[in-house]
Amino acid sequence: MRHLLRVGVAGLGTVGLAVLALVERQAASLKARAGREIAIAAIAAKERKERGRDLSAFQWFDEPAKLAASPDIDLFVELIGGADGAALSAVEAALSSGKSAVTANKALLAKHGMRLAELAERNGVALGFEGSVAGGIPVVKTLREDLAGNAISRVYGILNGTCNYILSRMEAEHLPFGVCLAEAQKLGYAEADPSFDIGGADTAHKLSILTALAFGTRVDPEAIAVEGIKDISLADIDAATELGFRIKLLGVAERTGAGIEQRVHPTMVPRSSAIAQVMGVANAVTIDADAVKELTLIGPGAGGEATASAVVGDIVAIARGLRTPPFGVPAAALKPLARAPIQMHEGGYYIRLSVYDRPGAAAAIAARMAERSISLESIVQRRPPGEYEKPAAVPVILITHATYEKLIREALAAVVGDGFLAEPPQLIRIERG
Amino acid sequence: MRHLLRVGVAGLGTVGLAVLALVERQAASLKARAGREIAIAAIAAKERKERGRDLSAFQWFDEPAKLAASPDIDLFVELIGGADGAALSAVEAALSSGKSAVTANKALLAKHGMRLAELAERNGVALGFEGSVAGGIPVVKTLREDLAGNAISRVYGILNGTCNYILSRMEAEHLPFGVCLAEAQKLGYAEADPSFDIGGADTAHKLSILTALAFGTRVDPEAIAVEGIKDISLADIDAATELGFRIKLLGVAERTGAGIEQRVHPTMVPRSSAIAQVMGVANAVTIDADAVKELTLIGPGAGGEATASAVVGDIVAIARGLRTPPFGVPAAALKPLARAPIQMHEGGYYIRLSVYDRPGAAAAIAARMAERSISLESIVQRRPPGEYEKPAAVPVILITHATYEKLIREALAAVVGDGFLAEPPQLIRIERG
Repeated sequence: MRHLLRVGVAGLGTVGLAVLALVERQAASLKARAGREIAIAAIAAKERKERGRDLSAFQWFDEPAKLAASPDIDLFVELIGGADGAALSAVEAALSSGKSAVTANKALLAKHGMRLAELAERNGVALGFEGSVAGGIPVVKTLREDLAGNAISRVYGILNGTCNYILSRMEAEHLPFGVCLAEAQKLGYAEADPSFDIGGADTAHKLSILTALAFGTRVDPEAIAVEGIKDISLADIDAATELGFRIKLLGVAERTGAGIEQRVHPTMVPRSSAIAQVMGVANAVTIDADAVKELTLIGPGAGGEATASAVVGDIVAIARGLRTPPFGVPAAALKPLARAPIQMHEGGYYIRLSVYDRPGAAAAIAARMAERSISLESIVQRRPPGEYEKPAAVPVILITHATYEKLIREALAAVVGDGFLAEPPQLIRIERG
Repeated sequence: MRHLLRVGVAGLGTVGLAVLALVERQAASLKARAGREIAIAAIAAKERKERGRDLSAFQWFDEPAKLAASPDIDLFVELIGGADGAALSAVEAALSSGKSAVTANKALLAKHGMRLAELAERNGVALGFEGSVAGGIPVVKTLREDLAGNAISRVYGILNGTCNYILSRMEAEHLPFGVCLAEAQKLGYAEADPSFDIGGADTAHKLSILTALAFGTRVDPEAIAVEGIKDISLADIDAATELGFRIKLLGVAERTGAGIEQRVHPTMVPRSSAIAQVMGVANAVTIDADAVKELTLIGPGAGGEATASAVVGDIVAIARGLRTPPFGVPAAALKPLARAPIQMHEGGYYIRLSVYDRPGAAAAIAARMAERSISLESIVQRRPPGEYEKPAAVPVILITHATYEKLIREALAAVVGDGFLAEPPQLIRIERG
């Protein structure tokens, strides 16, 4: 049996404390599974405040980078957070000093993943980041290792628990977005400033990592078209239910003839799909590949213990001797991402219009679609229930067959120009299994 | 970069040919991911018959064990099938000659897994068997590696695509078991002799492997209580729908106060659960664990390409240098399985009775339950639709709260003894998420 693996943990928030607890609780099992003892030797955090447990057994560092470079540890775990600053300098210090590192920091990976992967490879060490995407779901290793024999065509999923919680509540309780967001904040599922989650940036960071793993391309979060969920209304939720869909914020990366398409947006998914069943703060990822066809992983996307499970899985793999390149293939072999622009996106669309109740409106809208060869799967025009007076505007909902984003945008601009709409049009992409 | 990994494949059925095709198709990607070239060097099969492709590039062996022992290969892949015979002797020959081996053979693992794991460890080589359970779903590695930091409390799933196809069709088309089985046979989803699948033995083999990985116990298929699906009637399917359940053949392994409970049986699962959405030949596995809480993996449970995906994933891991003990911890450290007898099973039950329409029957049945402190969640007695004559027997459906198998069996025996039943009672266990 090889010698003890001494782990240093920087960042003592929820995840950091959960990692300490897991490594202690599972000590015997970790030793059996790793073939060597694993112990937390040292810790680092900004302040020496009370954290609800005794930390006196661990060597203390005020500076994460000093811990990372210390000869008293063999492996460095970064749970500080943030794309730059202390997290970045500490991981660099660890890798540069010949230590493997584990992180759950998607912002760091999205921004500096390529450079850190190169640094790890140059130093012959590992960089684990299973916890950075979809919390406790082992999707990084699944893409990097288990599906090595597959050509992947698409990877998509629910990667942000906050958004999924809000959308689930809107549907279940028929409450508007703002109320559900406030509730999520009260429960600790959303930050005081929720824009990073609900605007889609968090999902985009995670998607950029999955894209690199799935397609062997360089991480490129700038190439992602991003829309958040704040404009989803109860009218959309109701229409989705009626039409056999459910609305989810998805991150989607897909190989197309025009390159790799990466997008984050509210999406209509068939109600009978596995991903549509994922409610609340859970996450899910579906992978389409030539050999395995379709694989879906569902689990907790956040939370201290779930993320700690992923971090400890990485620690054990490294303890056992895993030294795979961080993104599966050497960083130098990752291809620049050939970005397929969102205007080239091909798919079905849900469109909700608020149309002035005038003769010829529906015909004019249909004509604007037909001019661009957009064929409609369904068109629903219905007086809103409970309104007995003739309303000024009526809702019209269109579902299109597959077409191009460019054509849909042009058609909607033309419809707006015709002056039939009382409100800006709502457009939600449809994703089929 | 290390030298070429020369692979020998024994067994050229659907999976074997798919492995050959995948390794050729993904050659460049496999090289990048494994850090070395991977090539099929030699093959073995019973007969040299036409197989729809050119095999002349490969060295040919008539004897799998000769291929396995040959110095011309570095890794042996067993895709012959069968718990003993050629498959067993070939894998033994490979491991004994210091070669790692990969197999998709659950019967072999269930019967000889402990001995083969010890042999692999003694020789310092790996034994990969990701393809032996749930086809393309990476559940073996998830349990063995990714969840290393977790204490697992339960693992359960749909592990047999044939049964899931039949149950899905019975519900969707409202056709009886026999018709759906015949259809499955016509489509190639069921064997001419389907007893191994529909009787639950195939699920039991796979479950015995998952149990060992999840709980660190020795493989013990004899300790599994097994019931198949042939007695599931449309009356049960209809009742499940009405009560908010779906019927699935599950394999369940659970840590209880009395030991590890292992059982394979038709099961009522809540219709809103992720596992209830898994229809057709797909497989799914859910893992309950302390840190990750609940993780569900859904994908193809069989088929040449999906199983080949798992086999190639194992080959790449071994090519990269993975040498973990086959069951995660050294075979010598696996504990004998402390079997919890099915009589001690605690859970809810669905009971369907055909009761003679006599005064006092319902009261007597309820009394037999109450005598054993079995409390009922619901009781439904309804005249069968379309029968206007007073029928001799009426269906009565009971859903119990959690109780013990022993008590339910006693209560039902007493009900039978009372002489109220026109047919033997139907009993289906309920599994909640």
